[in-house]
Amino acid sequence: MAHPSVPVVPALKDELDIVIPTIRNLDFLEQWRPFFQPYHLIIVQDGDPTKTIRVPDGFDYELYNRNDINRILGPKASCISFKDSACRCFGFLVSKKKYIFTIDDDCFVAKDPSGKDINALAQHINNLLTPSTPFFFNTLYDPYRDGADFVRGYPFSMREGAPTAISHGLWLNIPDYDAPTQLVKPLERNTSSNRYVDAVMTIPKGTLFPMCGMNLGFNRELIGPAMYFGLMGDGQPIGRYDDMWAGWCAKVICDHLGLGVKTGLPYIWHSKASNPFVNLKKEYKGIYWQEDIIPFFQSVSLPRECTTVQKCYVELSKLVAEKLGHVDPYFQKLSEAMVTWIEAWDELNTPSLAAPETKTK
Amino acid sequence: MAHPSVPVVPALKDELDIVIPTIRNLDFLEQWRPFFQPYHLIIVQDGDPTKTIRVPDGFDYELYNRNDINRILGPKASCISFKDSACRCFGFLVSKKKYIFTIDDDCFVAKDPSGKDINALAQHINNLLTPSTPFFFNTLYDPYRDGADFVRGYPFSMREGAPTAISHGLWLNIPDYDAPTQLVKPLERNTSSNRYVDAVMTIPKGTLFPMCGMNLGFNRELIGPAMYFGLMGDGQPIGRYDDMWAGWCAKVICDHLGLGVKTGLPYIWHSKASNPFVNLKKEYKGIYWQEDIIPFFQSVSLPRECTTVQKCYVELSKLVAEKLGHVDPYFQKLSEAMVTWIEAWDELNTPSLAAPETKTK
Repeated sequence: MAHPSVPVVPALKDELDIVIPTIRNLDFLEQWRPFFQPYHLIIVQDGDPTKTIRVPDGFDYELYNRNDINRILGPKASCISFKDSACRCFGFLVSKKKYIFTIDDDCFVAKDPSGKDINALAQHINNLLTPSTPFFFNTLYDPYRDGADFVRGYPFSMREGAPTAISHGLWLNIPDYDAPTQLVKPLERNTSSNRYVDAVMTIPKGTLFPMCGMNLGFNRELIGPAMYFGLMGDGQPIGRYDDMWAGWCAKVICDHLGLGVKTGLPYIWHSKASNPFVNLKKEYKGIYWQEDIIPFFQSVSLPRECTTVQKCYVELSKLVAEKLGHVDPYFQKLSEAMVTWIEAWDELNTPSLAAPETKTK
Repeated sequence: MAHPSVPVVPALKDELDIVIPTIRNLDFLEQWRPFFQPYHLIIVQDGDPTKTIRVPDGFDYELYNRNDINRILGPKASCISFKDSACRCFGFLVSKKKYIFTIDDDCFVAKDPSGKDINALAQHINNLLTPSTPFFFNTLYDPYRDGADFVRGYPFSMREGAPTAISHGLWLNIPDYDAPTQLVKPLERNTSSNRYVDAVMTIPKGTLFPMCGMNLGFNRELIGPAMYFGLMGDGQPIGRYDDMWAGWCAKVICDHLGLGVKTGLPYIWHSKASNPFVNLKKEYKGIYWQEDIIPFFQSVSLPRECTTVQKCYVELSKLVAEKLGHVDPYFQKLSEAMVTWIEAWDELNTPSLAAPETKTK
């Protein structure tokens, strides 16, 4: 045990980046300071590059605006959304770390039912460092948690689980509802006394889920290239489906590659509901498109030759054009952007290209 | 609202039977009296028929011992286990109600984290009367619960859900572990302060789970014929796989027929751990057989013509003989017992045979 006067080295300090799509609120980083300050931040400014984002003293960060994205990616910058928090995936691209935690700037530190501040990042790290159980359901939830285990009837050969690729955290206060539900239930709130569920669970293989980008951790080495947030916002026909798109693609690929996806703890405090009328305008095409998109992802079968995330993703891009092209011309454009994204990923993440000197060492 | 002096009619009073495999403990019914007394009990004595089971005054019940089972089923009684709680499924057979709640006699009333007695039966009824969501995962758990809903990205066409066939409840105090885990962790306990998870969730389509018979509700009209607890106990090579067997068969059939299975709340208080050495003797064949059984159930595909639970179950019995026969001759015997069970079910549950007078009304 460390001496009280010696600060404990935070878990994965040199292996994790925190990616934030934008910061409109100085309180945000002040409130998270005790938990985030030891880590490196990557801020991807989602709007007007002439505006200045202020970061409080003491944080180690890099900040990218649209001009930086255009300069770094050149023509490939077309795959990164503008004026939409979907731009956060640029941060995943430029990170050099093994793990990513991404969070929205309207998400604050939540309290557990005992009133204690929840260290969301520590819980994500714990979720990512312990296996998942996608092949069989454990009725006592996460079997690797202290005081828990696999129940009677759980096959022993499956108890090693699968490597965890994604840790999806939840929200107290404002739940993540779509615009129609927001309009119908404007006052619904989740509190730590009425809706706190003390569980982490694996989403079984073959099951899709709605992945929210507000409070999300992942292993970039295992699944990074699938965490593309699509084409949203400025000049695009939809918004608010960026994280959903990433979730559907990533889950299908995790299932194919034998990787695990967890959901549940940690909670963050989601401070404010976005405007339901604005949301409806962004969402309405997605709301009917998803009636075709979900059956498409439920029936996707990737060929055996797809042994890397990149290969899976390029294959998926072809299927998107082929099977969703009839829904709207948008999906043809999205399919092309998916390929561009993988090209950009490989350009920035292949040691021999990105850092040629390592070849000669 | 009912006047305080008028007792509120308990939900499903005339539509639900409580099935108990045996009662070795008079406290059991005394403790459950406030919740169970309005309902009809079916007690199926698992051991020596010359011993007398005492039922406290005030309960409405029927009691069956081995002699009764032999008399009612004749040669078909061979499909009902003897000296094992698997005999409880005889109670499912003779019930005439739409819903069943079954519970073991070492399970008592648990308390929620606020210290309040949990009405397990009321929670099961609520689970069974609201739909399940097997086709897509809702990250905020049961969307039909008060204060909850479907999250952003959940397809609207899937929000009606599926009829719920099974409600699987959990256990505080002694978790339902297999013998090896019991031996390794003899002191592990779940309490309402450390392991109470305030959630009900649907087990997704295509995912198997270990169904425990200790605290279990189901809709007998929807799934009854699949709730066969197999051949266990006296004269059989295994024990403690009765509920598992029923769970694997029932889940595969629910998936085929578009029915839902929920797990989570309610908790009961599981008072004592069974002897791990005795359990190991009962379980050890099951522990290695299940390494073949699980992949078998994971790959089962029922033909489209199987449109009733009975047809599904008979088809499954053929597949058991064909695909598990090589594991042990036991599975040939079990396959035949599965057919006998369906014959017995149809004999006792077909109005034209069991109650011919209804035809002439």
